[in-house]
Amino acid sequence: MSDDKRKVAGSEEFASRRAFLGKFAVGAAAVGVTAACGEQKAPAAAPAAPAAPPPAPPPPAPVAEAAGAVHVKPGTLDDYYGFWSGGQSGELRVLGIPSMREIKRIPVFNRDSATGWGGTDWSKELLKGRHVGDTHHVHLSYTGGTYDGRWIFVNDKVHARLARVDIESMEVDAIVDIPNSQGTHGIFPQRHKTGYVVCNAEYRTPQPNDGTGMDDPSKYGAMHTVIDGEKMQVAFQVLVEGNMDLAATDYEGKYSFATCYNLEGGVTLEQMMAKDQDCLYVFNLPACEKAVAEGKTIKVGDFDKVLDARGDDGPLVIRIPVPKSPHGVNISPDGKYAIVAGKLSPTASVVDISKIADAFAGKIKPRDCVVAEPELGLGPLHTAFDGKGTAYTSIFIDSVVCKWSIEKAIAEYGKDKPESAVLEKLDVNYQIGHINASMSETKDADGKWLIALCKFSKDRFLNVGPLHMENDQLIDISGEKMELVHDGPAYPEPHDAVIVKKDLIHPKKQQQRTQPRFAMYAAWAKEDGVDLMRDNKVVERPDGSVRVYMTSMAPKFGMNDFRVKSGQTVQVIVTNIDKVEDLSHGFSVDKHDICMLLNPQDTNSYTFTAGAPGLYWYYCPWFCHALHLEMRGRMFVDPKA
Amino acid sequence: MSDDKRKVAGSEEFASRRAFLGKFAVGAAAVGVTAACGEQKAPAAAPAAPAAPPPAPPPPAPVAEAAGAVHVKPGTLDDYYGFWSGGQSGELRVLGIPSMREIKRIPVFNRDSATGWGGTDWSKELLKGRHVGDTHHVHLSYTGGTYDGRWIFVNDKVHARLARVDIESMEVDAIVDIPNSQGTHGIFPQRHKTGYVVCNAEYRTPQPNDGTGMDDPSKYGAMHTVIDGEKMQVAFQVLVEGNMDLAATDYEGKYSFATCYNLEGGVTLEQMMAKDQDCLYVFNLPACEKAVAEGKTIKVGDFDKVLDARGDDGPLVIRIPVPKSPHGVNISPDGKYAIVAGKLSPTASVVDISKIADAFAGKIKPRDCVVAEPELGLGPLHTAFDGKGTAYTSIFIDSVVCKWSIEKAIAEYGKDKPESAVLEKLDVNYQIGHINASMSETKDADGKWLIALCKFSKDRFLNVGPLHMENDQLIDISGEKMELVHDGPAYPEPHDAVIVKKDLIHPKKQQQRTQPRFAMYAAWAKEDGVDLMRDNKVVERPDGSVRVYMTSMAPKFGMNDFRVKSGQTVQVIVTNIDKVEDLSHGFSVDKHDICMLLNPQDTNSYTFTAGAPGLYWYYCPWFCHALHLEMRGRMFVDPKA
Repeated sequence: MSDDKRKVAGSEEFASRRAFLGKFAVGAAAVGVTAACGEQKAPAAAPAAPAAPPPAPPPPAPVAEAAGAVHVKPGTLDDYYGFWSGGQSGELRVLGIPSMREIKRIPVFNRDSATGWGGTDWSKELLKGRHVGDTHHVHLSYTGGTYDGRWIFVNDKVHARLARVDIESMEVDAIVDIPNSQGTHGIFPQRHKTGYVVCNAEYRTPQPNDGTGMDDPSKYGAMHTVIDGEKMQVAFQVLVEGNMDLAATDYEGKYSFATCYNLEGGVTLEQMMAKDQDCLYVFNLPACEKAVAEGKTIKVGDFDKVLDARGDDGPLVIRIPVPKSPHGVNISPDGKYAIVAGKLSPTASVVDISKIADAFAGKIKPRDCVVAEPELGLGPLHTAFDGKGTAYTSIFIDSVVCKWSIEKAIAEYGKDKPESAVLEKLDVNYQIGHINASMSETKDADGKWLIALCKFSKDRFLNVGPLHMENDQLIDISGEKMELVHDGPAYPEPHDAVIVKKDLIHPKKQQQRTQPRFAMYAAWAKEDGVDLMRDNKVVERPDGSVRVYMTSMAPKFGMNDFRVKSGQTVQVIVTNIDKVEDLSHGFSVDKHDICMLLNPQDTNSYTFTAGAPGLYWYYCPWFCHALHLEMRGRMFVDPKA
Repeated sequence: MSDDKRKVAGSEEFASRRAFLGKFAVGAAAVGVTAACGEQKAPAAAPAAPAAPPPAPPPPAPVAEAAGAVHVKPGTLDDYYGFWSGGQSGELRVLGIPSMREIKRIPVFNRDSATGWGGTDWSKELLKGRHVGDTHHVHLSYTGGTYDGRWIFVNDKVHARLARVDIESMEVDAIVDIPNSQGTHGIFPQRHKTGYVVCNAEYRTPQPNDGTGMDDPSKYGAMHTVIDGEKMQVAFQVLVEGNMDLAATDYEGKYSFATCYNLEGGVTLEQMMAKDQDCLYVFNLPACEKAVAEGKTIKVGDFDKVLDARGDDGPLVIRIPVPKSPHGVNISPDGKYAIVAGKLSPTASVVDISKIADAFAGKIKPRDCVVAEPELGLGPLHTAFDGKGTAYTSIFIDSVVCKWSIEKAIAEYGKDKPESAVLEKLDVNYQIGHINASMSETKDADGKWLIALCKFSKDRFLNVGPLHMENDQLIDISGEKMELVHDGPAYPEPHDAVIVKKDLIHPKKQQQRTQPRFAMYAAWAKEDGVDLMRDNKVVERPDGSVRVYMTSMAPKFGMNDFRVKSGQTVQVIVTNIDKVEDLSHGFSVDKHDICMLLNPQDTNSYTFTAGAPGLYWYYCPWFCHALHLEMRGRMFVDPKA
């Protein structure tokens, strides 16, 4: 690809803003190269000053005295579900808001000892033997611009995957491997009706990445992948030239968005810092669908529905120039604006979505879609909304939440002496990354709670050694002033979170046997003439392996013992026939590295190799009854022959 | 082993209590066999009534209104550390008390995606490739009867292991595989000076367990294993006939204790329920040491320091008869009493430790050590203390905490019409297992906080599907009445917990390079002539593998790229040279299932096989800097030849 292909349409006009950016570039360079992290992290230390300092923040808000507001008393329930990405822990977490209590962990890309996730037959098939994940973004499926309670989507940066959690059962029911992608970062479901989930590849690689072209970064590219969230299949991919990080969708089902922080195509820190501007990619999804239907696709690697948009300035994609290294892109709840946070610019760029059609049509330049660019502070990353026209932007380097008026920013844009759109700043502790507010990413944003996901906690909790928790701070935004009400330690690294009204989430209390894995168990049972809900039976298989079917009902397994041979492949299929709410069992075999969960009316299975000759007890590891300890049996392992 | 060997010394006298036990046996059978779990779990439902009902409980205590007492305001710290076993999650958790916030997770027997635990070279060596653990009991090292801040010990039931966490670094520094054992349940460190940690095998197996003798349960036995907690090596084992579950040690370093719930040696539920009595094993540790020194040991399997105490009634072990299926054994903070909770008896047995020497000497019968046996409720499991003579026993079936006076129970014991020793009962939600109080297991028990680890949560939190959290309830015991102040959801299954004054715990904020794993890294560096703190270097090894040494300092790795060959064994050794508190980095390689943690001044390493030819980005998954996203490099994988 030539340098020309990486040139941003409209950048000639954008150059008129170079005076400002040039000023900031001094600050950005200082941040990027010379500032020691310790300095950045000290909350009170002044960051390396840019030539044009941002507006002086108001004095820090006092620590909330109304602490009781977030303590949910014993026996009462929270008002909101919080769905938390677990970052490199690979899991998904469910919190109650405002208590900030963790009310569930859902293993996704990690291996989980308790449930057997990653070890059971079904999860092994989904995970393909991998043990590590780096969950980044978590979003729920939508209908009509708000959450519809069907699914939770979450992605993995390490292996470029998208997983889906079925809310009825609160377990992963599908995982898609995303082709031609590395460092999958931002994802977003369509909001009119999910529909598609778009996924951004952050890392540019050779396309295809087959060992050729590795030494010529100018030929690298990255995929904006469009996944059918109902079928959990890749619909198509759009290939662009630059790094992408955050993703968003509009409320109409027409556009998807991706911030680009490395339009220069650098592969080292210095190269990535070379230029003063990057862009917001806007993808026209109906136009992409049309191009796919018309066969305008190429094959990259094994995937043949790739639209090469590296030279395209429409109809598939436009690039809206924004200051250097934008990070978050968030859509206001009224669907009007995309807010692009500057990261290495102290600004956010407000994109008027209604103007984008004219930009695609060539009637205006892409940069003309920007209708405001207020200065907010050093290191703006992400923006949340209260549904009342107010935006809350996380400011990483300053360690503050900046509350500002979108309409005022628009009104003042372009004025010689613009008034600041900033309404208030609140210190957070410390180095805030993502931010979100209750129902913020829906048309029903309600302006009640704001969550600040702070990357450093330093001295906010008891000393627990070199590895610190992060600090998820809860802020009450229902009043005139923001009020910090809770410090919530979090095992690294909750990358993002969404807060959802409790009346939109309706899991089932018994295991739903409609989950895709039950078809697998049913097929085995049919082969072997077994009724899963009743039979306890050892079946010798033609291949020399053995299937052990067993039921569980407190405080007994259906089988007191069974015999296998050393070295034999053993598959244990256990069905919990208990129906009582909260009466989960488990199945564990001593010395055989096996533990799995059996919810009420659940079946689960595990395949293993029988160890050295001897007796091995199997037992229920899930406390179920006064005689729980006695719920066990013996696996006799006889010598091979 | 003959039936005689399983006969309990002193049971002839114990038989005089059969009238009482006979009455209870009706209730126990009902609980064990006919009561549906649903009935047991409903908090208000009456359990199957025993013939002799327990004393009517006082009316339930009101839900605490003083909820603010447990909300620790932003920016302030908790007063106590809570160390929580994570049960079948395999991890250890650290909580702040009274906020009940999780302030750390320490991976122990589980595989952890965030830190790479279970995948890094060092952890793989400790875990031997196993992914699953079922942590049961967690205790800290002692000096002079209280915590000395050196180590945390935690055991695994699935694989019979004991792990040690070094408090300075808050990471596991050693794991011991316990021979000849299955279902390792209770553990306890010596309290005068740790010293030994004793570990009970719950499951009786053939000894040795080599495939012979599996069909004759009368020959099975179980090991009380004595581990040197400083060297983390097995010192010796004592072989007994019965199942063991909970463990304890005295304050003098003389005795260890184990409850036995299956003295009949049954292998099915019905067989285990056959008799009305079991026992408390008391081991005389100096006598055991002497016997080992005198060579009175046998070899079982690969381990040659086994004392066979199956026929012994002293000098090594005595059996104190107690009602059917005792569970917890806890020592009062004054060191005087061992409280043995009945599980299938509504009583707790109070053993006067000062009488045990006479029982070992044959001057009194073992049963004469029991100085009280108060009735507490249905299903007593464990006991905590406030240091003021009051005991708090968890009552599983009744779902209450029973507060009672030890001295009153002793004073009333044996009277014709004894007054109840029960002072108060508090409903908990629901089905409480372990219980503990602040500093309860030390001479400094302070009577401030009580934790009730409830196995079922049912309706106490927002509905999260078939798998419910457990409910760790915090109770204020500093006043005259117990006050329930917090419902704390917990990912299954926090088996046990201890609560420790914060001034006793002093981790270091930088990685201590004195950890045993650093000797391993230093040896490699010496072999390859590398300075870990400075060099960035790829070293081809004689065996065809490659070692990649790299430093990390925000926001850069010391190496922008490196080249390897497809299929080559690659070992990456990364040293974080940042010194700033909380500035952890990580190292992840796209598509290669690798993620590891690098604390400030830490080194960590991972061995993997290079994948298909192509370019793979490595990156820092631990948010570290404004330019964190740019902290990455390229691994070029060339074709094999």
